[in-house]
Amino acid sequence: MLKIFLEGGKLKKLPRMGWLLRGIPKPESVADHAFCVTLITLFLADELRKKGININVERALKIAILHDLAEARITDLPLDAQIYIDKKKAEKKSMIDILGAEKVEYFELFQDYEEERSIEGKLVKFADKLEMVLQAWEYEKAGFKGLEEFWNAVDYLKQSEFYEYFKTLIEEIEELKTY
Amino acid sequence: MLKIFLEGGKLKKLPRMGWLLRGIPKPESVADHAFCVTLITLFLADELRKKGININVERALKIAILHDLAEARITDLPLDAQIYIDKKKAEKKSMIDILGAEKVEYFELFQDYEEERSIEGKLVKFADKLEMVLQAWEYEKAGFKGLEEFWNAVDYLKQSEFYEYFKTLIEEIEELKTY
Amino acid sequence: MLKIFLEGGKLKKLPRMGWLLRGIPKPESVADHAFCVTLITLFLADELRKKGININVERALKIAILHDLAEARITDLPLDAQIYIDKKKAEKKSMIDILGAEKVEYFELFQDYEEERSIEGKLVKFADKLEMVLQAWEYEKAGFKGLEEFWNAVDYLKQSEFYEYFKTLIEEIEELKTY
Amino acid sequence: MLKIFLEGGKLKKLPRMGWLLRGIPKPESVADHAFCVTLITLFLADELRKKGININVERALKIAILHDLAEARITDLPLDAQIYIDKKKAEKKSMIDILGAEKVEYFELFQDYEEERSIEGKLVKFADKLEMVLQAWEYEKAGFKGLEEFWNAVDYLKQSEFYEYFKTLIEEIEELKTY
Amino acid sequence: MLKIFLEGGKLKKLPRMGWLLRGIPKPESVADHAFCVTLITLFLADELRKKGININVERALKIAILHDLAEARITDLPLDAQIYIDKKKAEKKSMIDILGAEKVEYFELFQDYEEERSIEGKLVKFADKLEMVLQAWEYEKAGFKGLEEFWNAVDYLKQSEFYEYFKTLIEEIEELKTY
Amino acid sequence: MLKIFLEGGKLKKLPRMGWLLRGIPKPESVADHAFCVTLITLFLADELRKKGININVERALKIAILHDLAEARITDLPLDAQIYIDKKKAEKKSMIDILGAEKVEYFELFQDYEEERSIEGKLVKFADKLEMVLQAWEYEKAGFKGLEEFWNAVDYLKQSEFYEYFKTLIEEIEELKTY
Repeated sequence: MLKIFLEGGKLKKLPRMGWLLRGIPKPESVADHAFCVTLITLFLADELRKKGININVERALKIAILHDLAEARITDLPLDAQIYIDKKKAEKKSMIDILGAEKVEYFELFQDYEEERSIEGKLVKFADKLEMVLQAWEYEKAGFKGLEEFWNAVDYLKQSEFYEYFKTLIEEIEELKTY
Repeated sequence: MLKIFLEGGKLKKLPRMGWLLRGIPKPESVADHAFCVTLITLFLADELRKKGININVERALKIAILHDLAEARITDLPLDAQIYIDKKKAEKKSMIDILGAEKVEYFELFQDYEEERSIEGKLVKFADKLEMVLQAWEYEKAGFKGLEEFWNAVDYLKQSEFYEYFKTLIEEIEELKTY
Repeated sequence: MLKIFLEGGKLKKLPRMGWLLRGIPKPESVADHAFCVTLITLFLADELRKKGININVERALKIAILHDLAEARITDLPLDAQIYIDKKKAEKKSMIDILGAEKVEYFELFQDYEEERSIEGKLVKFADKLEMVLQAWEYEKAGFKGLEEFWNAVDYLKQSEFYEYFKTLIEEIEELKTY
Repeated sequence: MLKIFLEGGKLKKLPRMGWLLRGIPKPESVADHAFCVTLITLFLADELRKKGININVERALKIAILHDLAEARITDLPLDAQIYIDKKKAEKKSMIDILGAEKVEYFELFQDYEEERSIEGKLVKFADKLEMVLQAWEYEKAGFKGLEEFWNAVDYLKQSEFYEYFKTLIEEIEELKTY
Repeated sequence: MLKIFLEGGKLKKLPRMGWLLRGIPKPESVADHAFCVTLITLFLADELRKKGININVERALKIAILHDLAEARITDLPLDAQIYIDKKKAEKKSMIDILGAEKVEYFELFQDYEEERSIEGKLVKFADKLEMVLQAWEYEKAGFKGLEEFWNAVDYLKQSEFYEYFKTLIEEIEELKTY
Repeated sequence: MLKIFLEGGKLKKLPRMGWLLRGIPKPESVADHAFCVTLITLFLADELRKKGININVERALKIAILHDLAEARITDLPLDAQIYIDKKKAEKKSMIDILGAEKVEYFELFQDYEEERSIEGKLVKFADKLEMVLQAWEYEKAGFKGLEEFWNAVDYLKQSEFYEYFKTLIEEIEELKTY
C-alpha cells in the first residue's frame, strides 16, 4: 500500500495547469482540488440518499478520492495538451501501474468515473465541475481575470441529471458570479 | 451546502504550520494533507474489513474528510500555540458554526475523531499520523532538516491497536528513514 | 536574549492571515508588517513631539517593535478564529513565556499596546491600522480585490484622538483609494 | 508571429517537472532552462568552429531556441508520464500547430533536435544534458537532495562525440560534484 | 567556459524588478525574459532577411543571448535605482569580468546592444521592448494592474526604424490592449 | 510623510539577494531583516544602558529602523554588484530623495550607521551582523547549504567593541553552529 500512498502524495506537488497557464502565481494543487471534490461529493451523495435516490455513498466517496490519482504519473495535462495526447488512455494505463496487481479492484471505480457508468461516477463528475466553478470564483474574487471559460461548467451543471436535486445550490453559485 | 464548500475551499490556502515554522518555503496546504489522510483511510479501512474487522468504511471516509475542516476557521495552530489556546474547544465551536443547524449530524463524526470514540475515529487518527510521517520523509528526502520530532509519530503507530494489521506497512515506513 | 531573537525571527515566516485567506498568493509576513508599523510610529511620534505633545518616543518605538511578538507563538489568528479563541489572553500568556523571567519589564509595554493605556500604546494602535490601510491599497493597486473591509480602518483613523494632528496624512490616504 | 511569441511566453510559467516532483519548492521554468541551453550552445558551437569543425552556428542557436517550444502545448512531461504518452509524437504534432503554416520551415530544425540528424541537433542535445547537470549541481549546493540520477547525464556527456573537444569542461563539471 | 555558464544560471534566480516592485507575487526571472527576447529576435531577424534587409542573424541571436548577462553580477536594477547608479558603466565592467580574458570577443556584441551600433544591436533593443509589452499584457490579462507605463514601450516600437517591417505585428499587439 | 511610508513598504517586496543567489527559494525580505535588526537593537541597547554605558536608546532604535531604507530605491545589491557600483554613494543620494527636504534631519542618523560615527551607529552595525548570522543558522537548520561565508560575521562580532558586553550571547550563537 505504501507505494500507492506515495503516489497520492505527489498530487500535493502538482499544480492545476489550467490556473497556472492563466497566470495565477501559486495555484491550487491537484490534491487541493481532489480534497474539495471529495468533500462536495460527501454532501451531495448524502443529500441524494435523503431524497430517496438509490446511491452508494461509500462508492461515491471512493471514486472521488481516486478520480485524479492517475495524475501522479501523467500530471494535470491542460486542454491544449489533450489535443495531442490521448489522456484517457494514458490515465488508464498509469492507473493500473499505480494500483498494482494487488489493488486492481479499485481500477473499476476509476473507470466508472472516466466513463460515467454509474450514478456514483456521474455524481463525482458533477462534483468535479462544481468544484472548478467555485475555485474560478475564488480566484476572480481575489482579482484574477481571464477565467470566463471555467464558468461554462455552470451550463454542464444545469444540464446534468442532478440539477433538479441541487437547483438551489446551482442558483446560489450563479449568483456568486454577479459578485 | 454552498457555505460548507466555501469553508472547505479555505483549507487550500492554509499552510501546515509545523512545516512552515521549520523553514520549508512552500509547505503543503491543510487540504493537501486532508486529501492524503482520506486516501490512506480508504485503503486501510478496506484492508481491515477484508481481514474480518467490523468497520464502517463509509463512516471512516467521512470522518477523514471532515477531520480538519474546523481549521477553515481557526487555522492550523502549531503545537506552541496550543499551550495557550484550547484547540479542541475552539475546533468544536467553530465546527458547529461551519456545519450550521442543517448539517449538525456531521458534528458527531467530527467528535468521533477528536475523542477517538469508535474504530473509525481511531483509524483516521492513525491515518493522520501515518500521513505526517510520510510527508516528513518526503521533505527529508528533498533535503530539508530539523524534522526528527515528526518521526516520533512512528512510535504512535507501533503502539496503536491497528499495528498488528499493518505491521508490514509500518516496517516499510521505518525503512524509508534509513534512506 | 538569544531565545527572544529566535522568537522574533519566526515572525518572518508567518504570513498575515487576512491577506492569505483573501487569496493573495505570497502575502507580507508578520515581520514585514511590524517593520512598517515601527517605521510609521517613528515619524508620527516625532511629529507629535514637535507639535508639543508630551510623548516618549523611545517608549513608542519599543511598543511598536514588540506589539506582534506574541504571534511567534500563537500565529496571526484571523478574525474568524478570534470568535472561538480568546486572542488577548493567549497573547499575554505567550508573551510572558517569550520574554522569560529576565525580561519581564517589556511585558508592561506589550500590555500598554493591548489595552491602549498610554499615549504611546494608543499611537502604535493608530500606526497599526494606518499600516494595514496602506498595505490594502498596495494590493488593490496591484490588482487584488475583495479588500474593501480593510478600508474601514480609515474610519478608525478619523475617529482617533490623533486625527487632528495627522489630518493631511489621512486625507492623502483617502485620496489613494480613488486611484 | 504574435501567436508564436505568446506560445513562447507560456514556457515562463511551466515548471520543470523533474525538479518539482523531487520536492524543490520553486523550480526553474522551462524558459529558464531553454535560455541556459541556448547560452551554452553559443559558446560550444563557436568553440567547435574555432577548432575547425564544420558547424553552422546560426542553425545551432535556432535549434536551441526552439528545442522545448512544443512544451508550451504539452507541458514538461516527467519521465513517469512518458511511459504512457508518446512524447515525441505529441511534440511533433503540437510543434506544427504552434508554428502554423507560415513558419513551417522551423519545424525541420525541431526535428533535427529530436532525431539528432545533424551536428547542430546533436550539439543542442549535448548542451541540454550539460545544462541539466549544472542545475542539479546548483540545487545540491543549495541543500536539495535526491538528485543523483540527474548526474547520470555526465556519462552521456562523456560518451558523446563532442567529449574530445570539451574534455576539460566535463572534467571541471565532474569536480563540482565532489564539492 | 564553465564560469560563464554558471553566471548565466544566476539569471534564473533573479526576478525582474519592475514587476516585483509593482506587487506581482512570483514574477518572471531575468532568464525567462532573455529567452523570449531571443525567440522574438529569431523570428524578426529571419523576417527582415527575407524582406531583403542586410542583417546577420547569427550575430543578432548572439546579442540577444548576451544582452542581459551582466545582470548576473549587478542584478536587474529598477528604474528608481538607475537615478543613483550608472548602470551602463557597471554593466560594462561586470561583463568584462564575466567573460574573462579568453572570451573578450563577446564583449563587442554586448556593447553593440548597449550602444545600438549595428542593425543587429538595434533589433535586439526592439525585441527587448516588444517582449516587455507582451509580458505586461499577460499580467494585465491575469488581473494585475498598475502596469500602464510599460505600454509606453509601444510608442518606442512605433517610432523605430523597424516599424515599417512589422506594422501588422505592432498593430496586433496594440489590439491586445483593448482586450 | 506618506511618501516615506510607501518607500518603507517597498522593503517588504525586496528579497535579500545574498540568500536568493544561493538558491533559497523564498528568502526573507529586506523588511523582515530590518525588523529583526531593530528588535535585536532594542535588547542590546537597553542591556548596554543597564551596564552603565552611555547610549541613547531612542537614537539607536531610529538608526536601526532607517538603516536599510535606501534599498527601497537601490534594492539589496549583492556583494558581487558592489564591485561595480559605489553602493554607499548611491544609498546616500537616494536616502536624501526618500526623506525629502522636510525630513532631512533623519539623514544624519543614516550617515551615522554608514560611517559608524557614534556608539548607536556602531551598535546597529553589530545588530545587523548578528541578525545575519541567526538567519544563516535558521536556513542551515532547515537544510540549506553553501552559507558558510555568512558565519564569518561571527568573527566581526568577536572583534567588536561590544563583544565584552555580549560574550555569553555570542558564545551561545557559536554553539548553534555545532547543532
